[in-house]
Amino acid sequence: MTKPIILTGDRTTGPLHFGHYAGSLRSRLAFQDSHEQFLLLADMQALTDNAHNVGKVRSSVIEVALDYLAVGIDPERTSICLQSQLPALAELSMLYLNLVTVARLERNPTIKDEIRARGFGRDIPAGFLCYPVAQAADITAFRATIVPVGEDQAPLIEQTNEIVRRVNALAGRTLLQEAEAIIPRAGRLPGVDGRAKMSKSAGNAIPLSASPDDISAAVRAMFTDPDHLRVADPGKVEGNVVFTYLDAFDDDHDAVAELKARYRRGGLGDTTVKRRLEEILQALIAPIRTRRAELANDRDHVTDVIRRGTLKAREITERTKRDVMEGLGLFQL
Amino acid sequence: MTKPIILTGDRTTGPLHFGHYAGSLRSRLAFQDSHEQFLLLADMQALTDNAHNVGKVRSSVIEVALDYLAVGIDPERTSICLQSQLPALAELSMLYLNLVTVARLERNPTIKDEIRARGFGRDIPAGFLCYPVAQAADITAFRATIVPVGEDQAPLIEQTNEIVRRVNALAGRTLLQEAEAIIPRAGRLPGVDGRAKMSKSAGNAIPLSASPDDISAAVRAMFTDPDHLRVADPGKVEGNVVFTYLDAFDDDHDAVAELKARYRRGGLGDTTVKRRLEEILQALIAPIRTRRAELANDRDHVTDVIRRGTLKAREITERTKRDVMEGLGLFQL
Repeated sequence: MTKPIILTGDRTTGPLHFGHYAGSLRSRLAFQDSHEQFLLLADMQALTDNAHNVGKVRSSVIEVALDYLAVGIDPERTSICLQSQLPALAELSMLYLNLVTVARLERNPTIKDEIRARGFGRDIPAGFLCYPVAQAADITAFRATIVPVGEDQAPLIEQTNEIVRRVNALAGRTLLQEAEAIIPRAGRLPGVDGRAKMSKSAGNAIPLSASPDDISAAVRAMFTDPDHLRVADPGKVEGNVVFTYLDAFDDDHDAVAELKARYRRGGLGDTTVKRRLEEILQALIAPIRTRRAELANDRDHVTDVIRRGTLKAREITERTKRDVMEGLGLFQL
Repeated sequence: MTKPIILTGDRTTGPLHFGHYAGSLRSRLAFQDSHEQFLLLADMQALTDNAHNVGKVRSSVIEVALDYLAVGIDPERTSICLQSQLPALAELSMLYLNLVTVARLERNPTIKDEIRARGFGRDIPAGFLCYPVAQAADITAFRATIVPVGEDQAPLIEQTNEIVRRVNALAGRTLLQEAEAIIPRAGRLPGVDGRAKMSKSAGNAIPLSASPDDISAAVRAMFTDPDHLRVADPGKVEGNVVFTYLDAFDDDHDAVAELKARYRRGGLGDTTVKRRLEEILQALIAPIRTRRAELANDRDHVTDVIRRGTLKAREITERTKRDVMEGLGLFQL
């Protein structure tokens, strides 16, 4: 029995943070035994809106790989691979671009939102408009059937499966399998300021490499219930970042439920709840930080991990490319 | 002294015709000694508007290569190579797509014309919109500094050079050279029906594999001066396809000048002029047809020629890709 293949990864635009941990890294640890897992260091995708900042994209390759290894990704069970070193991904992208219209790309809701968010207008880089096609190339090249995505990214899997069906129809047989999006149960972790999305650029993220003081400061400044002025007052749990984080990271669910009830009734101060959260976050991050610091001193090892993962990825992606090109009927030498 | 590199080629969408011979094949014969010449069998570019017809694109690979060899392209001096078997072209394309905006691609006059001509509207395949970027990848990957193009294609070289300048600016040094477009003196050969462009799909082309009867029939049906009803009448030479073809293929320029003068004065019938043109075309095509038929019986040889040319092309294009990726500062394993 071969295990199902799962492809996931991160754009290499900076080190990862608690949002990644809650949203994706934890579930990747769980997938290591049940699935054949590939983690893609997506430097080519990072360039679609960072072409002016290749230095950041390059240095983040090691940073993200360090985050993976530090949280417990095991390179013997999960292949960590570098997108720009996998030619088949570009070749399949160029092929698939002929199977998708410009109008279809412009209709993609994820792309529409991101164009708006980045203020690109018509000055959107062509690579950015086309990245759903590149993502379809990634997913199909790895023959991944399971793709964990954020809830706003489901349309990207739809686009992938449209291309899969088009390729199969042109070939007259099933060359590629459709992929299934799985949306992590945890959902998205809000920023410490209460905004919906934690992101480094918004300055509301706690990086996985945060020092104990960074964590204390972040929890102290964390958004709670602005109307909860006195300890004795009833407080709101919904939209209260401290409780959202407790839900995400405190394994003692009964204790959290009890705290929520007390907070709602009144008589529980923010300081007490924050103290509990801080303890949990400090305990969570301490071994990750130690491990990360050790690994950061052995960059050759990290590079070697990426090299071995990339070689393994090259095998499977080259084979898929050959299958697709032959299957569609291109001239073979 | 290394020779300057020239890149040219054809989309593999059907066998070549007299228009290609007059417009490009003849000059490629002349370049064989003075330049390092690569002829690209552009099957990936052919797919940008032929994804539904891969069979035609595949079979045309051999047809076009046969045409090259039949007219006298010498694989010892010119490398004939297959685009879909050169991964570096796709990799550079994906990289360059991040350096060009969608608005810029849509402004490209060649693309605008072709979108109109093909009636694509918004349903243009993304690969078609992006093909100027793929062409920039081709040109730069081969480090070609000379690119023969049709007169309507000069904007494509402009796009290439914009990308070259952007890459060099990002790298902070000259990674790539700008290319120079050369527009063949001969200009474009009209169709036998007098329409501006000879094309197989318009049914107004004489293929290089035409039989003697095909040539006779084509010349007989050729558009002349519709107002030149009697031999004694003065006739028009401008827009008269027979004279355009004589200009293109008759090496005895004095004799052609003399015929034109007589035709203009009156007293020279279409039949006489057509007889001369037919003789010239039959003499031109006879050895090409014989050679083509011989080669067509040895497809293994033709495939081997493409294989060797592609291997040589792979060396130079892989090296360029590495130079560009390293030069821009991508992470190297």
